[in-house]
Amino acid sequence: MAEQVTVPASHQDMVDRPLIAHFATVRSDGSLQSNPMWFLWDGGRVRLTHTSTRKKFANVSREPRVALSIVDPDNSQRYLEIRGEVESIEDDGGPGEAPFYRSLQERYGATGAPIRDADVRVVLTIRPTAILARSFDPEDTEPKMQRSVAARPA
Amino acid sequence: MAEQVTVPASHQDMVDRPLIAHFATVRSDGSLQSNPMWFLWDGGRVRLTHTSTRKKFANVSREPRVALSIVDPDNSQRYLEIRGEVESIEDDGGPGEAPFYRSLQERYGATGAPIRDADVRVVLTIRPTAILARSFDPEDTEPKMQRSVAARPA
Repeated sequence: MAEQVTVPASHQDMVDRPLIAHFATVRSDGSLQSNPMWFLWDGGRVRLTHTSTRKKFANVSREPRVALSIVDPDNSQRYLEIRGEVESIEDDGGPGEAPFYRSLQERYGATGAPIRDADVRVVLTIRPTAILARSFDPEDTEPKMQRSVAARPA
Repeated sequence: MAEQVTVPASHQDMVDRPLIAHFATVRSDGSLQSNPMWFLWDGGRVRLTHTSTRKKFANVSREPRVALSIVDPDNSQRYLEIRGEVESIEDDGGPGEAPFYRSLQERYGATGAPIRDADVRVVLTIRPTAILARSFDPEDTEPKMQRSVAARPA
């Protein structure tokens, strides 16, 4: 069994807080896009809300390898990078329900806004293959980097 | 002559302020990475400081197509996405000088820190091919998206 790729305890707050993750995907012509996204970390996977009608959905259906980065808004020298693969894309509940989207609205303090695209909402689940955690405290002379990387499949 | 890809006036502050850009690049195996970066926008190009010894340098030397995204820390529904190509990679002044790196230290309020890697500092210049500017004000019912896209080369 491959070891679990984890967020180091020193950076757990970065996935607990409702920060913005920047989500990199490959487009059909091989060029890249980067989009700010809400996310949820459940201890082993990153989950994103998306719709099945947009570009990023087509991107990750074709090339599941993605990357996310998250910066601490209180110290921009401190950040987390998560590389991984989209493991599943599932409907977000039944038609019009979007329970996962609603839970992210709540996490990000954006409740009350109408969900016009609930019928096409999907949940992207990303299995991390590498997590890099950087910190650079004022008393340090060098940045510190921690890595948690999955063994490559045999 | 191709038209100039521009940052819309509504989002000029996002490139004037010393915000963090998240920089997506393709790795040698085709997987992605995303890294927080300092940047400078000169009205037509994005400039980043980097070193010639790191992974991202090898990445953009192989695949020059990159993407950057920048979020307004005061309103995470407001952001800028810049897609483009690395047009040049140049030494940052003579050995030990790194004038561009120093100017970014100043822009980001990080002056005084020693520059241990000045000898290998380079300047990445990115020509934008598409700029997308999103805003979603509290009084709006829909997000607004503005696009500035270069004509494809003939």
